Amino acid sequence: MAKALNQLGALEAVKRLQRRELTAVQMARACMARIEQREPTVKAWAALDPAQALAQAQVLDSGAVRGILHGLPLGVKDVLDTQDQPTRYGSGIYSGHQPASDAAVVALCREAGALVLGKTVTTEFATDQPGPTRNPRNTAYTPGGSSSGSAAAVADEMVPLALGTQTAGSLIRPAAYCGIVGFKPTFGRVPRAGMKTLSENLDTIGSLARSVEDVALLASVLMGDARLRDLPDAERPRVGMLRTFQWRHALPETRNAYEEAARQLSRAGAQVEEVALPAQDCSLVQLHADVMAFEAAQALAFERTRCRAQLGGRLLAMLDAGAAIRAEDHEERLLRARQSRGRALLWFDRYDVILAPSTAGEAPFFDQGMGDPLFCRVWSLFGFPAVHLPFAQGPQGLPVGLQAVGAPHTDHRLLAMARWMHGVLQQAD
Amino acid sequence: MAKALNQLGALEAVKRLQRRELTAVQMARACMARIEQREPTVKAWAALDPAQALAQAQVLDSGAVRGILHGLPLGVKDVLDTQDQPTRYGSGIYSGHQPASDAAVVALCREAGALVLGKTVTTEFATDQPGPTRNPRNTAYTPGGSSSGSAAAVADEMVPLALGTQTAGSLIRPAAYCGIVGFKPTFGRVPRAGMKTLSENLDTIGSLARSVEDVALLASVLMGDARLRDLPDAERPRVGMLRTFQWRHALPETRNAYEEAARQLSRAGAQVEEVALPAQDCSLVQLHADVMAFEAAQALAFERTRCRAQLGGRLLAMLDAGAAIRAEDHEERLLRARQSRGRALLWFDRYDVILAPSTAGEAPFFDQGMGDPLFCRVWSLFGFPAVHLPFAQGPQGLPVGLQAVGAPHTDHRLLAMARWMHGVLQQAD
Repeated sequence: MAKALNQLGALEAVKRLQRRELTAVQMARACMARIEQREPTVKAWAALDPAQALAQAQVLDSGAVRGILHGLPLGVKDVLDTQDQPTRYGSGIYSGHQPASDAAVVALCREAGALVLGKTVTTEFATDQPGPTRNPRNTAYTPGGSSSGSAAAVADEMVPLALGTQTAGSLIRPAAYCGIVGFKPTFGRVPRAGMKTLSENLDTIGSLARSVEDVALLASVLMGDARLRDLPDAERPRVGMLRTFQWRHALPETRNAYEEAARQLSRAGAQVEEVALPAQDCSLVQLHADVMAFEAAQALAFERTRCRAQLGGRLLAMLDAGAAIRAEDHEERLLRARQSRGRALLWFDRYDVILAPSTAGEAPFFDQGMGDPLFCRVWSLFGFPAVHLPFAQGPQGLPVGLQAVGAPHTDHRLLAMARWMHGVLQQAD
Repeated sequence: MAKALNQLGALEAVKRLQRRELTAVQMARACMARIEQREPTVKAWAALDPAQALAQAQVLDSGAVRGILHGLPLGVKDVLDTQDQPTRYGSGIYSGHQPASDAAVVALCREAGALVLGKTVTTEFATDQPGPTRNPRNTAYTPGGSSSGSAAAVADEMVPLALGTQTAGSLIRPAAYCGIVGFKPTFGRVPRAGMKTLSENLDTIGSLARSVEDVALLASVLMGDARLRDLPDAERPRVGMLRTFQWRHALPETRNAYEEAARQLSRAGAQVEEVALPAQDCSLVQLHADVMAFEAAQALAFERTRCRAQLGGRLLAMLDAGAAIRAEDHEERLLRARQSRGRALLWFDRYDVILAPSTAGEAPFFDQGMGDPLFCRVWSLFGFPAVHLPFAQGPQGLPVGLQAVGAPHTDHRLLAMARWMHGVLQQAD
């Protein structure tokens, strides 16, 4: 049976859109119909304006093919400014706020022809206070956060592509819980202009989709990197399997996925080896949390000092704790992170790619929070690119997977290996 | 003769403000009187609202002492958002734009008691298209850019303190041309939330004032670092004199200042030595310009794609050139910059501080552009902290000086040494 239009991957859809075998209006209508049907349950969207989206789709259909995202419906996390849609940053402080311009990444996507379908739910300023979004695989569970709406909308086939952001684990974790592919590029490569930032040295904008090719397609626009649209073949990569210092928190489903991946990749020809952990780097999870708290207290200084009553209790506690951290301790942590990062870089002399847990296990219940980013913090701290690959299931039938991590500024090679590994692991599944 | 209130340094003024020997209203009135007198000539301000400033000063006077900037009038470069004043980013695209919140640095300054007197003129998006501001030392000359209004306002004793930003040389150069102290902190230490960013890996917010203690006072708020308010004594620092690969561009006044500084510092007890240049790092000025062009094309994607007709010709040319740079070349440059930075770090095993030219010479004529940031680009690329120290004069009687550069994350030590050196050099002058 042919796929419905809303089920098409971005790459499949855009080929037909560019050949004019499919119109932007048809594609938008299919996605909007899916949203109309499912949104009351999933609650992925913070703002939607179907009439406006259809009008913009008609403009795309009546002009020349715009670019490599021509006519593709896109969900935009609501910490990213949009000129034509309200932008709340997940906080009542910004109810009814209408930015004067698009975030740089939104402008880049629109220049490439993307159709911004709406704004997706974010947690409060991309921190810990959940929004209303449910996990579309099973609505009793959390979709994870903070890119909750983007991950849920993509997983539920409401849109083929969405933008998210990560400071701790906000791309990889919701991708994992919702069973899609999430890509966090190398730190510093995607412009954050027009993003409501949380942490100067950690915030990274990335892409969410249902395949590695599709996250790479969107990332090629965010990074201005044509190589991501034409990934090289990955030949028997040297895979370093990394349990990390958080391994004791890994649940059986993650342990199984880890063992299974090692077996299958080895069988498919990869050189698979366990990575030894440098003992001096055992406390990086806390170090990340401390850097984030200090920088969040700085970045959200306006809200912390002027709008305290409108902040969630957990966020306020983190900001006040962050504001109390001494500069000398923060500096020392930044320098320690840089040293640890230098040691971790040496892994890539020996391995082409690192494979590590993304989450402890499948998604927790909706009312038990959004899960813990503990397996993601170190990669956010190092600024290494990472891709979540979904390929297994947990005891509740919810998705599980692993993240592939690459050396900084080799995102195209990482995505090429991730595509190969994902193919192997999905086949085995 | 006693100084007029508008001539007081920040540290002098705040002591009296905190003791209530001086009111915020008195201080604001003195600064506003100076502005009223001089603004028609100097043109430092993009937005001013005296009635609002006075009302805010009254609030400060009627409440408890707010913090370490209590009642100090502050100029805010107009690339930084303010909730209560229009913010144009130096571009007609944003005429009448009113941000919903304060930039993080503005909120931090206000929390510490600063009184935002108004918005200072910036070049177009902090790039090359000059604003109307004149050099207050001699209005036939440029104040430099892009923090033109902030530097001119401080130099002309309109305010004791101002915020600026640097991507190439936009703090150090106008400080040099206007004869004040400018401080660019370590990259990544000051939050850029609410700044109109230009370059992800280069943009740095910093402080402008008429003494090293005063730039340090303001920076202590921006960086959340109490050490900057209590600088240690600098004991006979080891000073590395660095001509840089741009030395052939240095005019006689800069060469004289350089020789003079070496002589005086040595006489005062410093260990002064010429730094040898690593030959492989000779092309970093162009490398910086290329990184900046690529990242500006990303960061200003909205304006580049949607508002082309409203952009200045030189900016548009830079953005289009930047958009044409291949990602692989950009990545290679970022990696090369990191390697060069690693080599430069080794200098600080041998020297406590580097002293290098800030500009080729004194300010050019107003209608001959804003001068060249060529002596500043490398320090912006490396993200090292730098302070401009004014202490000499050029043939037109305009100010000249040098910049002191420190190892990253040792800003408090750099400022301590800069204070000592500035004392020595001013005395000799």
